[in-house]
Amino acid sequence: MTELERLIQLLAKLPGLGPRSARRAALYLVKRKEALMLPLAEALSAAAARVHPCPTCGNLDTTDLCSICRDPRRDGAMLCVVEEVADLWALERANAFRGRYHVLGGTLSALDGIGPGDLNIDGLIARVAAGGVKEVILATNATVDGQTTAHYITDRLGATGVAVSRLAHGVPVGGELDYLDDGTLAAALKARRPF
Amino acid sequence: MTELERLIQLLAKLPGLGPRSARRAALYLVKRKEALMLPLAEALSAAAARVHPCPTCGNLDTTDLCSICRDPRRDGAMLCVVEEVADLWALERANAFRGRYHVLGGTLSALDGIGPGDLNIDGLIARVAAGGVKEVILATNATVDGQTTAHYITDRLGATGVAVSRLAHGVPVGGELDYLDDGTLAAALKARRPF
Repeated sequence: MTELERLIQLLAKLPGLGPRSARRAALYLVKRKEALMLPLAEALSAAAARVHPCPTCGNLDTTDLCSICRDPRRDGAMLCVVEEVADLWALERANAFRGRYHVLGGTLSALDGIGPGDLNIDGLIARVAAGGVKEVILATNATVDGQTTAHYITDRLGATGVAVSRLAHGVPVGGELDYLDDGTLAAALKARRPF
Repeated sequence: MTELERLIQLLAKLPGLGPRSARRAALYLVKRKEALMLPLAEALSAAAARVHPCPTCGNLDTTDLCSICRDPRRDGAMLCVVEEVADLWALERANAFRGRYHVLGGTLSALDGIGPGDLNIDGLIARVAAGGVKEVILATNATVDGQTTAHYITDRLGATGVAVSRLAHGVPVGGELDYLDDGTLAAALKARRPF
């Protein structure tokens, strides 16, 4: 196997790239060795060496504690529980939450054989038990596994007496009713607010 | 900017990856440091250092002459002219051509300001003039620019007396007439063959 074939094989393993787009990306890179190919190689090595999960919340960062856990302006009394780092990033982009996070690293899944021990749930319980947290916001996905995980965590947190909430279901902002599924419409109707 | 942000920024420059899929790819990589992230960094460096265009045909390879130009079983009397290395790869996958190639590196394009001097056309004329080539097969894309380039090359090759052919137009194998454009149908009808 040549260097080029090996590169294509590895690129094809990235999510969103298949064999065809991996070939295209490889040719694109070879045409831009100095501008993109070598900087990308360097960035991959640097990130692999330095990026690691925050021991407190599971966010990815290069510092020992992540930038959110270190930030004294973030409200440590509010803890938002998410499945993955990508969800944390999505909430940060929305810029609507000033508390701290807890990344589970997935969801409970009977089908995939993922139990509570495979997720960072004990860490969450310990953080809450250590005191200072007043509210836990469950921001797991609105899927069966996400909701199962939310219920399990609520049960586990019961003994601590902390307030537990979850994200509202409803019509997405900018969404058209005609395109929404029955479940979302029913949830939006049930959770209607005075206008 | 952290190492992770820089990695995402560079990944987003690859064709087929936007900002969202670049974030997803970066998280995927960080979860697979040993299995994918470091091997990919290594493969990028190795390919950047060793892969270069073949001085004869323009194909990409790690050896001085590319594997096709070196292969004594390939028929040097047939030269297939393609726009890009990706086109050469597509023809090689089809496994239907046993001659050699010539990669132009693009097409003539008045809009993009690409003239004959920007393409490897002089190299093609020189290869043909050096003798040994009996037929030049023009396999540029069936686009306006591709066909313009084919016509220009045919003119330039006129003095050498070499036979010039081009790929057939017609119904793609497995294609349904109802979904084909008028131009393809007209070309297929005009080029009909005895059955």
